[in-house]
Amino acid sequence: MKTLVIVSHPEYDNSMTESFLQQCQNDIDEVDWLVLDHLTNNYEFDIDKEQNRLIKYDRILLQFPMYWYSSPALLKKYEDDIFTRSFTYANEDGKLKGKELGIITTLGEPLKNYTVGGSEGFSINEILKPYQALAFKSGMKFIKPFAVDQFAYMTDDEKGKLLVDYRNYLTNEDINGFGSKQIWYLSQLKQLRSNLSSEKQAKLDIIIDYLQDNYDRLDEIKWELDMIKKEED
Amino acid sequence: MKTLVIVSHPEYDNSMTESFLQQCQNDIDEVDWLVLDHLTNNYEFDIDKEQNRLIKYDRILLQFPMYWYSSPALLKKYEDDIFTRSFTYANEDGKLKGKELGIITTLGEPLKNYTVGGSEGFSINEILKPYQALAFKSGMKFIKPFAVDQFAYMTDDEKGKLLVDYRNYLTNEDINGFGSKQIWYLSQLKQLRSNLSSEKQAKLDIIIDYLQDNYDRLDEIKWELDMIKKEED
Repeated sequence: MKTLVIVSHPEYDNSMTESFLQQCQNDIDEVDWLVLDHLTNNYEFDIDKEQNRLIKYDRILLQFPMYWYSSPALLKKYEDDIFTRSFTYANEDGKLKGKELGIITTLGEPLKNYTVGGSEGFSINEILKPYQALAFKSGMKFIKPFAVDQFAYMTDDEKGKLLVDYRNYLTNEDINGFGSKQIWYLSQLKQLRSNLSSEKQAKLDIIIDYLQDNYDRLDEIKWELDMIKKEED
Repeated sequence: MKTLVIVSHPEYDNSMTESFLQQCQNDIDEVDWLVLDHLTNNYEFDIDKEQNRLIKYDRILLQFPMYWYSSPALLKKYEDDIFTRSFTYANEDGKLKGKELGIITTLGEPLKNYTVGGSEGFSINEILKPYQALAFKSGMKFIKPFAVDQFAYMTDDEKGKLLVDYRNYLTNEDINGFGSKQIWYLSQLKQLRSNLSSEKQAKLDIIIDYLQDNYDRLDEIKWELDMIKKEED
């Protein structure tokens, strides 16, 4: 699976969040990043070039800070220019059909304020409807959005977890599947293992075994639940 | 009441819909239009100047063709630049508090396709959530959106009705009130009367009387309904 992360951030080079997430760029082969703010300085795009880029990927992720409940204007210009009717409309043989579309958005306000009665008044799901509609019209599968709130206040542990979750969002092929995060963790740990000293490998093996047991047990429980449901029918 | 219509349309000068709606600009004193595409050609705005412009108006209307379930990018850039935190946030003494915000949007697809199960999949109300959230955050009252669908297929009668409804949306002070459209019609007709020949005035008086009777009867019915409700309580 090939993933493209399309980033739009007017202050990209000064953003702590962006430079933190950027760390992934060195060691994930199947993911590419495209920073729109580096691609153009006059709001113009090479439409053919960008359309040809998009068709190479299976998962397309739009990454941006939330500006007035949407992306910064430059990403909107990209949408307006690149997603032409013939390239995009699923019912007119568009070229995006079957791909996945996801949103990675960074919030200045706490996520919990995005609710009726909260300071933002509306949920992230409500606010992202225009992107869900874009996915619908183009025949793309809209995957669960990934929101990063209040990065500046995160502890180092929270930041570590964020980076793992971000990698999972970018590379996990079965992102909504049952137990898919556990399987993905296990495969990441097994990859990591080969670069370690034998002493550290031994320690990591204990963790891998523990997680594997845990996952197997979860899988059994799921199987049992399925059986109970079948008997009820 | 002073109204500002902020228009964003990359093809403004070639748009049949825009040039049709533009007709209003000659004879409504209390409404001003600002065409963003004429204001800038490099996506840059004079922030102070635009903020000072906005504070003079009571009703602010964003008028645009629907591009990927939102405005064209230029209007988004205007939002990103002009609606600074200190100018906008209601809880930080923002300057937009108490004003009205409305959306005038032109659709290529029929309005009835904006529904679950339709070709667009989502309703106009869902798609416009980011603007509703902007109104909420800035303490503005979000008024019912005004959608123009398939202008190219309209008959002359339908276009005439559109122009009347558009004027009503721009100038009716009590836009959601009971019978407010009738009152507004009557006041428009009475204004029109003074410019007519005495023969035409006589004809118009019959129409005005008819509408006035109609409105009075509606008002009585509303009063009776209110009485019935009170008795039930």
